[in-house]
Parts: sequence; C-alpha cells; structure tokens
Amino acid sequence: MSRPRGTLALLIHGGTDNWSPERWKTRFDAVCADRPVFLLPDETLDPAEVRYAAVWKPRPGELAAFANLRVIFNLGAGVDALIADASLPKLPIVRVAVDDLTKRMTEYVVLHVLAHHRQEIYLRESQREKRWEPKTQWPAGAISVGIMGLGNLGADAAEALKILGFKVSGWSRSEKNISGVSCFHGMDGLAPFLKKTNILVCLLPLTAETRHILNRSLLSMLDRDSPLGAPVLINAGRGGLQNEAELLACLNDGTLGAATLDVFETEPLPKESPFWTHRKVLITPHNAADTDPDAISKYVAVQIERHEAGQTLQNVVDMRRGY
Amino acid sequence: MSRPRGTLALLIHGGTDNWSPERWKTRFDAVCADRPVFLLPDETLDPAEVRYAAVWKPRPGELAAFANLRVIFNLGAGVDALIADASLPKLPIVRVAVDDLTKRMTEYVVLHVLAHHRQEIYLRESQREKRWEPKTQWPAGAISVGIMGLGNLGADAAEALKILGFKVSGWSRSEKNISGVSCFHGMDGLAPFLKKTNILVCLLPLTAETRHILNRSLLSMLDRDSPLGAPVLINAGRGGLQNEAELLACLNDGTLGAATLDVFETEPLPKESPFWTHRKVLITPHNAADTDPDAISKYVAVQIERHEAGQTLQNVVDMRRGY
Repeated sequence: MSRPRGTLALLIHGGTDNWSPERWKTRFDAVCADRPVFLLPDETLDPAEVRYAAVWKPRPGELAAFANLRVIFNLGAGVDALIADASLPKLPIVRVAVDDLTKRMTEYVVLHVLAHHRQEIYLRESQREKRWEPKTQWPAGAISVGIMGLGNLGADAAEALKILGFKVSGWSRSEKNISGVSCFHGMDGLAPFLKKTNILVCLLPLTAETRHILNRSLLSMLDRDSPLGAPVLINAGRGGLQNEAELLACLNDGTLGAATLDVFETEPLPKESPFWTHRKVLITPHNAADTDPDAISKYVAVQIERHEAGQTLQNVVDMRRGY
Repeated sequence: MSRPRGTLALLIHGGTDNWSPERWKTRFDAVCADRPVFLLPDETLDPAEVRYAAVWKPRPGELAAFANLRVIFNLGAGVDALIADASLPKLPIVRVAVDDLTKRMTEYVVLHVLAHHRQEIYLRESQREKRWEPKTQWPAGAISVGIMGLGNLGADAAEALKILGFKVSGWSRSEKNISGVSCFHGMDGLAPFLKKTNILVCLLPLTAETRHILNRSLLSMLDRDSPLGAPVLINAGRGGLQNEAELLACLNDGTLGAATLDVFETEPLPKESPFWTHRKVLITPHNAADTDPDAISKYVAVQIERHEAGQTLQNVVDMRRGY
C-alpha cells in the first residue's frame, strides 16, 4: 500500500471517555488532502509509517510504539497530561494556539468576572425567593481583576476586561508587559499582585511549580478592601492548580466570598463533592474553552506543511518549564 | 435670607419608595458650591426662588408650584414617567448622559448576552442536579445579537459585543451608522433586523410608539436558525415596552428560548407574577444601570454652569419624539 508524502495522523482516544475521535478524523481528512489519517485501532496501519500524532490525553506508553514519529500535536490548550507520560518519545510537542480557543476563554472569563461583579449569586437567590431587593452596585472601575498566567489566553482576557472598565493586573512566571495592565512576575511578584486583587482569574498551566498554587496561603493574601468584600476566585486553568480541601475551607470561613470553578482535581466532579451544592460556587463542566475541531485541524495541517517545508514549528512546548 | 447666584436644587422624592433624596442632597451640596440645595418639604423655601429641579419620578403636578423654574434635570436615563405628567411646566428637560451609566448598562448587556450564549441556565440546572454534562458550545461568531435602540447605551454595548466576536446589528427610529454594526431603522427596517437576530437586546425609550413593541408579532419574527435554537430576549429598557402576557406565552410555547428581564410593567414585580419561577427567565430588580450620584450631581452642576454662562443645554429631551 503506497502512501504519498509520508503518513500523518494517528488519532488516539485517550483518558476521557467523552472524547470522540471520529469527529476529528472527518476534519483532518478534509484538511490533510491526500495524507492518510488513522484512528486506533487500525489493522491496515504500519506503525513505522506514522510521522505525526494529533492526540488528547493518550494512555501512557501508547505513543512509544511509533518509531518514526516526528511531531506530537496536543488537541487542547493544556499539555500536563501528555508530558506526565515518562515513556513519551523525546519529540517536539506542539500546543494548539488558535484564536477560536483564546476567544472562547475570554468569553468565559468576562462572563464570570461580570457575574460576580454584578452580584449574580445574590440575584439568583433573590429570584428563587421572589425578593425584589437590589443592593448597591458599584462600577467596574472599583474592582481589580488579577489574572494569573499572561500567555495568549491571559492577555486576551485582560484586554476585554480593560474595555469594560475593570482595573486589571496580571502575574506570570517570566516578565511580561501589557499596555494598561499592571504586570507582576516571579515568586517575588506574587504577594504584591495578590494584595491588589479582588477577583482572581487563574489561567496558569499545570506544572510541578504550579500544582496546588491555589491554596490557603495564596488565597489569604487577596485584597478584601473592595465593594465586593471577600475576594472571588475563578479557576479555568487546571484542577491540579487548586488544593480543594483548602479552597473549600476558605469558602466556608469567608476568606473567599465566592468562586467559579471549571476544573477539578477529579473530573467529572464526583457526586459527593461539596462544591456541587455550595451556595457560593458556580460550577461549569470543564467547558470554559472547548476546542473547535475545524479550527484546530486546520492549525495542525498548516504546522505540518510548515514542518515539511523546513520551517520552524510554532508553539512548541518547553519541556523544562512544562508548558 | 439672601441667596447668591439664584437658587438651584429642589430634590423631590417621587413615585418610588426606595429612592433616598438625602444621599443626593449631600452630593449636590458638595458640587454646587454656594448654591442652596433643598429637599421637599422645606418651610424655609420660597417657591419663587427655585430655578432648577433635579428629580426622579415626581408626583404629577408637584413641579407646577415653582413659577420661576428654568430647567428640569431627570436623575436617570428614562424620562417617560416625567413627561407623562400633563401639568409639567413647558421647560427644557435634561436627560443625564454620563459615562458611568452607559458603562453599567454595557456591563449588564454583555453579562446577559454571554450568560445565554454560554448556556448558563442549563449549566446552573446541571449544577443543582449534580450533572457533569457539557453540551456543544459554539463560538460567539455564530450568534447574532440585535440591539433595539442605538443611542449612547446601545452604541456602547454594540462595541463591547463586537470585541467579544458576536455579530452585532442594531435598530433605531432614525438612521444611524456604527462601524461594524448592521444598522436598520424605522418600521420598514424592523422585520429585516429581527430576521437576523438570535439574541434581542432592548434598550429603547418608552414612548407612545414603543409601548408594547415587544409583543408576539415582533418576537415571532426573530431568527430561530442559530445554534441557540429559539431566540432570546434581554429587556433592560422599560417594562412598558413589553406585552407581558404575550411574552409569557412566547416563552411557554417555545417562540422564545429564554429571557433576561430587568424591567416590568409593575415594579417591584408582584409576588404572583409567573416570571419569578419561570425556568427560562433571569430576573434582575431594575438594576441594569444604577445611577452613580457622584457622577450625576457633577453632570447637573456642569449643565447649570453652562446654562448660566449662556451656553446650550445638552441632552435636552425632544418632547415630540418623547425621549
């Protein structure tokens, strides 16, 4: 069986059961021209022919079988599950960085910042109790939103929040400069950043350094001196960023006033989790920034073209820093 | 008792009981220098000395007692209650048009457009039932938001929605041009405007022409061909704009998929209203754009200075069109 131009795609159904590889194959077939696209398992596939893998949370060891693999594309924003696989071939891993994903995350961040700012938890309770009792509402300019993680996602969200009138600051591992945003960086910058933040938005990647960064020690440093009173947490990064026992305790003792959580240490969130029924918590099922298969399959196809034309791959994961 | 520079302010507690004139007097005292500011009733006040009135829903006839009144300032966006008073002296009525009010309305519109776009009603139900079941989420670019009313408020909201990626169109009485917004106007433009709208945002003033404009006939013309399915209504204008019996029927028979209502024909919304418990309806207690007394008192003080210096008053209500 002859293959034109090498063999592209191996689509692997990984750790999540609700991930459907078929919808991806359709898209890749459409954008990869005559490059063959495979799903596993496939009896007709010679593993030696596979040059590229486009994956979402493959099981550990699964990619080791493909000796001629050159590039691994991760079909989502977070690569933590992928690089946790010690048997992963030492190859470039490309993160998807498509506008569509960035814009969806900005929608989510803006929605939840506004929801807390505009007292939505109180107003929904009022509606359930048929109470017409507006409370004083302050303008966006009275509230400081602090974004942890100032990559593509954080920078775009910051821009939208600025336009709505919020005071915006940001914190990142390495130094960044964003117009109109107070930027802090490194461990030294963390306390001064937190001290001026009323609504904390976490968009960090999950690495050894960031695991459980959202703990009591950090949450206790947030600014309580705003019209919101107790500060608010929005975590749309990864569940592993939060120490859930401490987060829950902070919500219960008033260290935190409210939270929006899109991600959890165990997903789907177990039925017995106290977050489900916590009246200060808004839960979403890890859908802050769903990926659009059309946009992402095109992105991967373009990256493969670039690679085969001898150009540099874009958005390659730095294995040392972990994202 | 001698008064420097004529007499300014008469602050009237009007039709709403939760309106506190004292907080306004404090602000006006602060920004009006040596101009005396009065609340009613006040035994020391000679009605002939009153030149300016800053009011919110005064009772019909109350202003007729002040023979030397020159200008009436309305301490909110909507003037419908004021001009419904047939005994109102034939004087210029100035609408407040302060950025603070505009920005608050934009916050509200963006919050509720995003809430419906991002399936918040479904997601809160899911949380109550402890269901981790994300549904397909489309990007903002797949949704057309149509804004009725393209004055200061509508134009500002349109800009913020455009930045988030929504397709935005608008409808107004007279012709408008806003970059990146499909603008329609007049009765002829209404059907084509509605036909392309998935989320309808109503920011119209209440006039004889717009009363009950949100009725079954209008709502039936909205576009149902979007990922949202049935269209959504957000009314942050005036309760009198909606025919509530028809609106409720449209929600119940699927003509409308959901609604956010900040305003009602009777406010506070009576306990027996079926909107309170309707699972497709988000209710807010007419707080979409609270006015900031600091910003508004300064605005009024500046307008009075301008007037006394012989300059033209700004944002004077056109009594013929009704806003």
